[in-house]
Amino acid sequence: MNLLKRKIETEGVVLSDSVLKVDSFLNHQVDPILMKEIGQEFVRRFHNKAITKVLTIESSGIAPALMTSLQLNVPLIFARKRKSLTLSEGLLTAKVYSFTKQEENTISISNNYIKEGDEVLIIDDFLANGQAALGLIELVQKAKANVAGIGIVIEKAFQDGGQKIRELGYQVESLVEIDSLNNNQVTFKEDVQ
Amino acid sequence: MNLLKRKIETEGVVLSDSVLKVDSFLNHQVDPILMKEIGQEFVRRFHNKAITKVLTIESSGIAPALMTSLQLNVPLIFARKRKSLTLSEGLLTAKVYSFTKQEENTISISNNYIKEGDEVLIIDDFLANGQAALGLIELVQKAKANVAGIGIVIEKAFQDGGQKIRELGYQVESLVEIDSLNNNQVTFKEDVQ
Repeated sequence: MNLLKRKIETEGVVLSDSVLKVDSFLNHQVDPILMKEIGQEFVRRFHNKAITKVLTIESSGIAPALMTSLQLNVPLIFARKRKSLTLSEGLLTAKVYSFTKQEENTISISNNYIKEGDEVLIIDDFLANGQAALGLIELVQKAKANVAGIGIVIEKAFQDGGQKIRELGYQVESLVEIDSLNNNQVTFKEDVQ
Repeated sequence: MNLLKRKIETEGVVLSDSVLKVDSFLNHQVDPILMKEIGQEFVRRFHNKAITKVLTIESSGIAPALMTSLQLNVPLIFARKRKSLTLSEGLLTAKVYSFTKQEENTISISNNYIKEGDEVLIIDDFLANGQAALGLIELVQKAKANVAGIGIVIEKAFQDGGQKIRELGYQVESLVEIDSLNNNQVTFKEDVQ
């Protein structure tokens, strides 16, 4: 994903040693062509899985997950962070602690759309400490479905989420892995000798 | 948009005389093929406008807006309902009252991504009393950009938002217009004699 790396290098803003702002193409303004390429790359990386559903979490996960689901021709489900007015019965929930926001959210999906027998590809924009991904895995398990894999746009490899989830046996595919944001600089994993 | 109508007829759930639940293809589970067709239809309806940006609001607007922006090959911006950690300076804001949730939200966009000279197509999933659309119009005006038009997936034509916004002189294109949800039944506008 050289296009994604170039975007991060030219447009990413390092706000601290742990926070990278990518609001110009992923988290606020969205580059649809880049999202399409991201979708194609996830499909390539999970081509050996018979995926039946794509699962993400609102809001920043929706764009890359939609382009993945379009190319797989399977439905997308986005988990809610807040209670929906029209989404009340048959909720599956998981608690997710956000270290950046220092608050706990209850994320939820309806039990109508992910079921036993589903092979679920989880997609998210960032992987850092892994809380969101672990919450999504928990939702899939509560639905008695199977996690086919986890596709991440940007992994902060200097935090331990990726390691934790890989050690649980899941296939985690991160399109770029960042080794450090120290000194206001983005260092990608492959750059480290 | 016969596909959309068929989806509403077969999968929509009328929760009350004013609330239609379309969680199986738009608001929670998302049908990517339908979103693609919706994007194509919006592009067709606004083909006479030189659109430079698509603007929507998280979360349910993102999917139809992304497919529209992809086909227009212009960036998508999604307004935030809640404060973002990495989105702080240069915020343009508007207050939006939600009658269904009975709460006021401050929606916001960064002033980096919509600017003077931009022709902005606003996309949203529902149009009812028009509060969200009016808030998005206000954001575009605060950015000194121009509203090229407003594309709505489902308009509740029995509420007054569509009329209000059309009377302001904006081109509003709704892919389906619902005339009534009375008696647990969806009645489309064209069905009324």
